[in-house]
Amino acid sequence: MEPLHLVSRDYQSQDTIVQVRDVKIGGGTRVYIAGPCSVENEAQISEIAQAIKGSAHILRGGAYKPRTSPYSFQGLGEQGLCFLKEAGQRAGLPIVTEVMSEEEVDMVAAYVDMLQIGARNMQNFALLRKVGAQRKPVLLKRGVAATIEELLLSAEYILAEGNSQVVLCERGIRTFNHTYTRNTLDISAVPILKHLTHLPVVVDPSHGSGRWNLIEPLAKAAVVAGADGLMIEVHNQPEQALSDGPQSLKPEKYKALIQKIDRIVCFLEEEITCKY
Amino acid sequence: MEPLHLVSRDYQSQDTIVQVRDVKIGGGTRVYIAGPCSVENEAQISEIAQAIKGSAHILRGGAYKPRTSPYSFQGLGEQGLCFLKEAGQRAGLPIVTEVMSEEEVDMVAAYVDMLQIGARNMQNFALLRKVGAQRKPVLLKRGVAATIEELLLSAEYILAEGNSQVVLCERGIRTFNHTYTRNTLDISAVPILKHLTHLPVVVDPSHGSGRWNLIEPLAKAAVVAGADGLMIEVHNQPEQALSDGPQSLKPEKYKALIQKIDRIVCFLEEEITCKY
Amino acid sequence: MEPLHLVSRDYQSQDTIVQVRDVKIGGGTRVYIAGPCSVENEAQISEIAQAIKGSAHILRGGAYKPRTSPYSFQGLGEQGLCFLKEAGQRAGLPIVTEVMSEEEVDMVAAYVDMLQIGARNMQNFALLRKVGAQRKPVLLKRGVAATIEELLLSAEYILAEGNSQVVLCERGIRTFNHTYTRNTLDISAVPILKHLTHLPVVVDPSHGSGRWNLIEPLAKAAVVAGADGLMIEVHNQPEQALSDGPQSLKPEKYKALIQKIDRIVCFLEEEITCKY
Amino acid sequence: MEPLHLVSRDYQSQDTIVQVRDVKIGGGTRVYIAGPCSVENEAQISEIAQAIKGSAHILRGGAYKPRTSPYSFQGLGEQGLCFLKEAGQRAGLPIVTEVMSEEEVDMVAAYVDMLQIGARNMQNFALLRKVGAQRKPVLLKRGVAATIEELLLSAEYILAEGNSQVVLCERGIRTFNHTYTRNTLDISAVPILKHLTHLPVVVDPSHGSGRWNLIEPLAKAAVVAGADGLMIEVHNQPEQALSDGPQSLKPEKYKALIQKIDRIVCFLEEEITCKY
Repeated sequence: MEPLHLVSRDYQSQDTIVQVRDVKIGGGTRVYIAGPCSVENEAQISEIAQAIKGSAHILRGGAYKPRTSPYSFQGLGEQGLCFLKEAGQRAGLPIVTEVMSEEEVDMVAAYVDMLQIGARNMQNFALLRKVGAQRKPVLLKRGVAATIEELLLSAEYILAEGNSQVVLCERGIRTFNHTYTRNTLDISAVPILKHLTHLPVVVDPSHGSGRWNLIEPLAKAAVVAGADGLMIEVHNQPEQALSDGPQSLKPEKYKALIQKIDRIVCFLEEEITCKY
Repeated sequence: MEPLHLVSRDYQSQDTIVQVRDVKIGGGTRVYIAGPCSVENEAQISEIAQAIKGSAHILRGGAYKPRTSPYSFQGLGEQGLCFLKEAGQRAGLPIVTEVMSEEEVDMVAAYVDMLQIGARNMQNFALLRKVGAQRKPVLLKRGVAATIEELLLSAEYILAEGNSQVVLCERGIRTFNHTYTRNTLDISAVPILKHLTHLPVVVDPSHGSGRWNLIEPLAKAAVVAGADGLMIEVHNQPEQALSDGPQSLKPEKYKALIQKIDRIVCFLEEEITCKY
Repeated sequence: MEPLHLVSRDYQSQDTIVQVRDVKIGGGTRVYIAGPCSVENEAQISEIAQAIKGSAHILRGGAYKPRTSPYSFQGLGEQGLCFLKEAGQRAGLPIVTEVMSEEEVDMVAAYVDMLQIGARNMQNFALLRKVGAQRKPVLLKRGVAATIEELLLSAEYILAEGNSQVVLCERGIRTFNHTYTRNTLDISAVPILKHLTHLPVVVDPSHGSGRWNLIEPLAKAAVVAGADGLMIEVHNQPEQALSDGPQSLKPEKYKALIQKIDRIVCFLEEEITCKY
Repeated sequence: MEPLHLVSRDYQSQDTIVQVRDVKIGGGTRVYIAGPCSVENEAQISEIAQAIKGSAHILRGGAYKPRTSPYSFQGLGEQGLCFLKEAGQRAGLPIVTEVMSEEEVDMVAAYVDMLQIGARNMQNFALLRKVGAQRKPVLLKRGVAATIEELLLSAEYILAEGNSQVVLCERGIRTFNHTYTRNTLDISAVPILKHLTHLPVVVDPSHGSGRWNLIEPLAKAAVVAGADGLMIEVHNQPEQALSDGPQSLKPEKYKALIQKIDRIVCFLEEEITCKY
């Protein structure tokens, strides 16, 4: 195994707190990131932002979409960033979006509060260096076939460039399972990562399962296993979504889920402080 | 996909309750199965049984061990069954053990309260038929590369012979991960199975991770994801265990874990009954 | 890793020659095993045997079929063995069939010249011991998620009981690929096994791919990679086969394939003897 | 499944011939690409180029290396390109090297005859578009967890930008195997790809196995399975290589291998023309 350095608990024992505007990720709180897979138009992202604003800390939405086929909807691009930014501002939520191109890092960073590196780009080292050399926090998703070590060393690329504001995201791995789930969520990655690194770890049960009706049990599992937050796809009309409809929750379902998660979090925190 | 029949929710919507002497598995309660990987001698199994009796519902212990190598410790055989039976009786716990041979089914069933089919034998159809044709309840473990469908159809073999007292057990699948875990626990299998079948589903975080320090987060995750119970390896001297030492908890750690799990279960049950 | 013993090249450097009646497997020749997935009736197996007799050394046919579902065709049982035996005798071919139950080993061995242990039973240690304790040669198939080491240690179980007439069979592993192939044939297993063990190694491109039109390239690949033989499913009416139709060759296609393989084998053997 | 378009045999039934200077890939010939993992210094690449020039059609060598850790040797960069170019010119061989960054595509393309997209960047869509928008041929390696469909759709990104000079490369997938091989070479991908697409397909047995002593059997297997060429790592001092030493052949071994492969190719071509 390659040695870990800046990302390791040996280098820094204390939890890193990643600050996305006024939202703190890491160090014991739980953060909810929610929104649609893709920003589709101004009304859609604005409506979703308004619907979830009391139940989410950060608004997500894709303007540049990594699609398997060049003929699938590729996102609205910079216009999508505008819509996302306005929706976030109106709802009072910081925003995160994926950046897929080195050449677009600065432009995208000018619009958003946090940059996401998608699973397919987890080992796009040129892109990792670019987001490491700017100052916005980074959400780094685990590749579908990436080991824990590879995820941490990809984060190391970002830290080595001077940016230590990195959040790791488990989002399901590729296994022989494919009938009932799109990916297999690796819950054990959460405690392993929390043990090895000081960086916060969030879980994406939407991609981790690919099915909206598995999001609730997996979100609960992630939180009790020690995740610092959740990233969940929410769409106002999943059946008409341009991407990822089958794994998106409607806002009402999302809000009901977060209420349940919040109660588990309260309960777990009481446990920690032994007041129960 | 092959059609499911007797095991499906379509055939029987209500949860099956599997009764192991006076312990009920399924239908809303959580059951804890604990004990060593192998019965090593009379004192060992007796001591462990006494140590866990207040924190476990069923005592486990292997007398016939499926070992990759013919030169590894293969279990004490029938003498191990005697020791297990005595230990269970003294502690007031029903007992479960693995049966590996068609020819030993009747003999093993005469000693124990529940028969386990191990992961390696999940598609040993002759053995499935044999345990289906006798009356003791069966704990069927998922194979390391078995799909959800294959697990359910293996259970179907048992039910088709007339024995509907079957508990399914998720215990980790084989993926590209191998550095930090022995297997990858597939937590999403729990809600999927609970949706498809009326049979109870338990989770084995000991084999599911292969490391004692991952058992707690994975046990919690399994319970909140809907598992009907847990199966956990407990050893009084893990460092000297003849098998599976690295994934075994000491009795004190096990008891502390079960207290935490019990509190989560209470909390979840309140949620279900809306009294919170 | 567990230590290898009787199966290892360290224990015996010279190739083991497994003798199935007058057919020798191992030591430099190439052996072709062919026949239908299942023996379906007397006419079917007889017709296939006649059709392939000049192009196969051993006739295969399943009388006891390991099927995922208890409701799928399970084979004709002992009657199938009779049909297979007669077909083999008439065609002058030794026969191999799968045995799935410890209790049937002696009965099946009385009919056939070689016993097959299927992939699902590769770690059915009770069955391995049983076929190790009788004298007919054994064809041991690799499990879909079995490592090379696990396959070799399963063979070790057979040798440790006194039967050293074991042929190993690579037949595809389970990976994330599932659209174009049923399994992923692990060709690299062939040279690795040949390096580690003195036992012969054959390849089953029918199960290894699940598609008849991949059998030819994979059969060629297996032979040039060092396989001691091939096992190929042949059916006179694949579209009406009770099992594995899509991966079965018609006799004419099979014979044409074997002619091509034979020419490659000649070529390779010339290479070995430097006469080219 | 997403529909294939420009890459499919339905769109173009005839084999695409990719031309790298005067070397033609596709359409029935076999092309050998060889050289070190990394260009380490002027003498090393020059010496290797001289040693293999009679046995290779294209010289490979990495100047920008995708390394899991930011602290591993990252390649010599543009200086490495200079050394590679000079070595190629002196040996009379066209050259191929990996490009990892959108921003470096034009610069790298100015030095080399063919651009390689590595497995980690197979779904770096920004980079795919960049190499699609320039005119040098592209060698696209399959990602370690990429399906056949995903590989073809990544090629589709390049063709959709106007560059149809694309060669696909199978180089091993990530499975549960990890003791004896670094990856599992998916030989069945070759005939499947040849059936689905008109683009040439080469195989990299060096990465596909990770062990020099598996290269020969896998190279032979690839060729008989229909590969249009091979990509093999050759180093003059593998034990001192800065990267991939264990999977590199020495020049003499490489040349001996190519002689054997050439004889198989001759033999296969005779077969095709029925002169045998």
